[in-house]
Amino acid sequence: MSRNLTVSAERIAADIDALAVITDPDRPWTRRAFSPLFLEGRAYLENAFRTAGLETRIDAAGNLIGGRKGKKPGAGTIMLGSHSDTVPDGGRFDGIAGVVVALEVARALAEAGIELDHDLEVTDFLAEEVSIFGVSCIGSRGMAGVRPAEWLGREANGMTLAEGIEKVGGNPGAEQKARDDIRAFLELHIEQGPVLEGEKLDIGVVTAIAGITRIEIIVEGRADHAGTTPMDRRADALGAAAHVVLAVETLAGELAATPGHFAATTGEFEMWPNAANVVPSKVRMLLDIRSEKRDDLGQFLTNLESCLEGIAGDNGVTIAPPRLVSDNPAMPMDPLVMDALDDACAATDAAHRRMASGAGHDAAFMARIAKAGMVFIPCLSGRSHAPEEWAENADIALGAEVLLEAVKRLDKQLMEQ
Amino acid sequence: MSRNLTVSAERIAADIDALAVITDPDRPWTRRAFSPLFLEGRAYLENAFRTAGLETRIDAAGNLIGGRKGKKPGAGTIMLGSHSDTVPDGGRFDGIAGVVVALEVARALAEAGIELDHDLEVTDFLAEEVSIFGVSCIGSRGMAGVRPAEWLGREANGMTLAEGIEKVGGNPGAEQKARDDIRAFLELHIEQGPVLEGEKLDIGVVTAIAGITRIEIIVEGRADHAGTTPMDRRADALGAAAHVVLAVETLAGELAATPGHFAATTGEFEMWPNAANVVPSKVRMLLDIRSEKRDDLGQFLTNLESCLEGIAGDNGVTIAPPRLVSDNPAMPMDPLVMDALDDACAATDAAHRRMASGAGHDAAFMARIAKAGMVFIPCLSGRSHAPEEWAENADIALGAEVLLEAVKRLDKQLMEQ
Repeated sequence: MSRNLTVSAERIAADIDALAVITDPDRPWTRRAFSPLFLEGRAYLENAFRTAGLETRIDAAGNLIGGRKGKKPGAGTIMLGSHSDTVPDGGRFDGIAGVVVALEVARALAEAGIELDHDLEVTDFLAEEVSIFGVSCIGSRGMAGVRPAEWLGREANGMTLAEGIEKVGGNPGAEQKARDDIRAFLELHIEQGPVLEGEKLDIGVVTAIAGITRIEIIVEGRADHAGTTPMDRRADALGAAAHVVLAVETLAGELAATPGHFAATTGEFEMWPNAANVVPSKVRMLLDIRSEKRDDLGQFLTNLESCLEGIAGDNGVTIAPPRLVSDNPAMPMDPLVMDALDDACAATDAAHRRMASGAGHDAAFMARIAKAGMVFIPCLSGRSHAPEEWAENADIALGAEVLLEAVKRLDKQLMEQ
Repeated sequence: MSRNLTVSAERIAADIDALAVITDPDRPWTRRAFSPLFLEGRAYLENAFRTAGLETRIDAAGNLIGGRKGKKPGAGTIMLGSHSDTVPDGGRFDGIAGVVVALEVARALAEAGIELDHDLEVTDFLAEEVSIFGVSCIGSRGMAGVRPAEWLGREANGMTLAEGIEKVGGNPGAEQKARDDIRAFLELHIEQGPVLEGEKLDIGVVTAIAGITRIEIIVEGRADHAGTTPMDRRADALGAAAHVVLAVETLAGELAATPGHFAATTGEFEMWPNAANVVPSKVRMLLDIRSEKRDDLGQFLTNLESCLEGIAGDNGVTIAPPRLVSDNPAMPMDPLVMDALDDACAATDAAHRRMASGAGHDAAFMARIAKAGMVFIPCLSGRSHAPEEWAENADIALGAEVLLEAVKRLDKQLMEQ
């Protein structure tokens, strides 16, 4: 399908291809935050921002920002953006597409001679992916004023995070204040899931970024000789843990079939003593639970605890109540922004649906200080964080057009509020 | 219960206590083969053998042997023995009880003025436990002429196995010939399982040493984003592997409930990528299968393969046919020796049953060259290879009395054959 677009699909493709070349050649595509390759990518972007007529700067939190003033001083800022860092081995598009598309919206506005009432900013957030410092969304947390102070002392590769932020041009010593001028924030991202592709849709308008809750479950049985201990005299921690894994699957499957995104994954699984001739005595599991609705999480945990009691009793093992490792509630997107995106989809004839984001994004932090929204575009087989991650250029360009339309609408609507 | 015994429970206790002191003080009880502590234990035993009037030697395979000639030259040898080496952290009694009891039978015979027709030998086999060289039953394999030649080149702690055998006084360069003079071999050992204790029995007369078969099962699914991949669109290797673990339990439980020892254990379990936010893509399992009857093993493997096909289909994963890692068939004990042990139990008023050994023992190799039999005695909670392993001295002494009675019977019966 070929559409008449205001944005340029060719410029988008050129930027994405140019950034794809800036990778560890042995591990495409790898451009991890704080690395020389990351700085090389940033240099490319800063030049592209300037060429598009944007005034560039690095803010105190280490974010690269290209800005253009609006017609109405004091009206505040509409910000578009995402991130240019990658996980190891993964992602030609994850983050990058959002930065390039934000830039293209600025270019298309200028080309069309459209001056916004609001200031416009295009942002490449620092270190959205889990970086060498073991934490994520460093730049957007900083912009929202919620980057924990103690993180600055974290060390990796012979530097502290404070030194890393300085290295990219930020000012970690500055007082961390939440930006209060941003009226709306919009981020385009590949879906990282198979829903849009499966339903042959162009656009997902994100309703919320799901909460991420991590819990640890430890099963304790008894180490016995695998040869001599009769099958009915064992307290096999692995057998009990297998029941736990299947209970997690079943309970999560039930909640996933009800409205609101829900998923639970036993992502880490470790067994002791892990010796061929010894009945397993202990298993540790780490569960990753994503919930759009807080009630779903509560129901899952209640049902799981009751399952664990039954499994412990049936298998002669001990299972302590799950330990809460971390708990970040869901972050809803703004209704005004979602409506503007729906309208923009209708105007550009983009087949769309609303959907939650199961993954975390910079938009979750921007939603604390601005009306935020996200646009998902399809990606091949829902794969991401892997070399085979792929998004069609036409899909990215259509997403850019939707973003452009939404920005034009929001620029007006926000003035009326 | 106090019995009038010919053997001395006090001497048995004294020897076991004396050997218990010869341990790594920080990790009781640790006296690993080829270590200085092992040589210290051997020195104690050699002295005890000599004090009991036995003529001591180290054979080419590194076994410590104490011998006494019988009345009938050329009648051959009745051998008793076990091993004095331990696993790390484990075993005041595993092996040691069998060596000490063998010595006590020799002492009791001498004390009672009983001269056997056959030569009598008491043996401390070299390195029954998996040693630093990664292999087990080095001494009994050597005596049976089946120690693989290439093992001599194995290296650990800066020495080869050949140098290790030399260090304990053996002659690894000598031609390895199976002993052909041993008419009967008897070994006492703690059960290492909970059956005798549970049934309040004194003695288990071993019918066979179960076969040990190891198979590897690999489940391959697909790594997906744990947040964004809907529950019904996953190929979760862990979920499928959980079904495999439970199928192994169920199939093994069914066979365990039929006559003949059977047990199967998923002893090793490893998962990839083992990251909190990624759906598991791969699981490797190693199964340890113990079977007294070869048919049981065949039935288990057939049923398991059919289960694996169903699990792979139901879960959208790939499971290759199990890979056979190792396969050692069961070794039956000799009927004449088993009958002699039954009769000896009856004569000493020892409550007994026949049972298979789920664990491997030196007797499995001695059975290749001699009529072999084993006597099990109860141990606390069936625990072994652990610091808390325990056997009551009265139980060990009663086992010694049974062995003494059986030796007296076999000495006559073997002459009649």
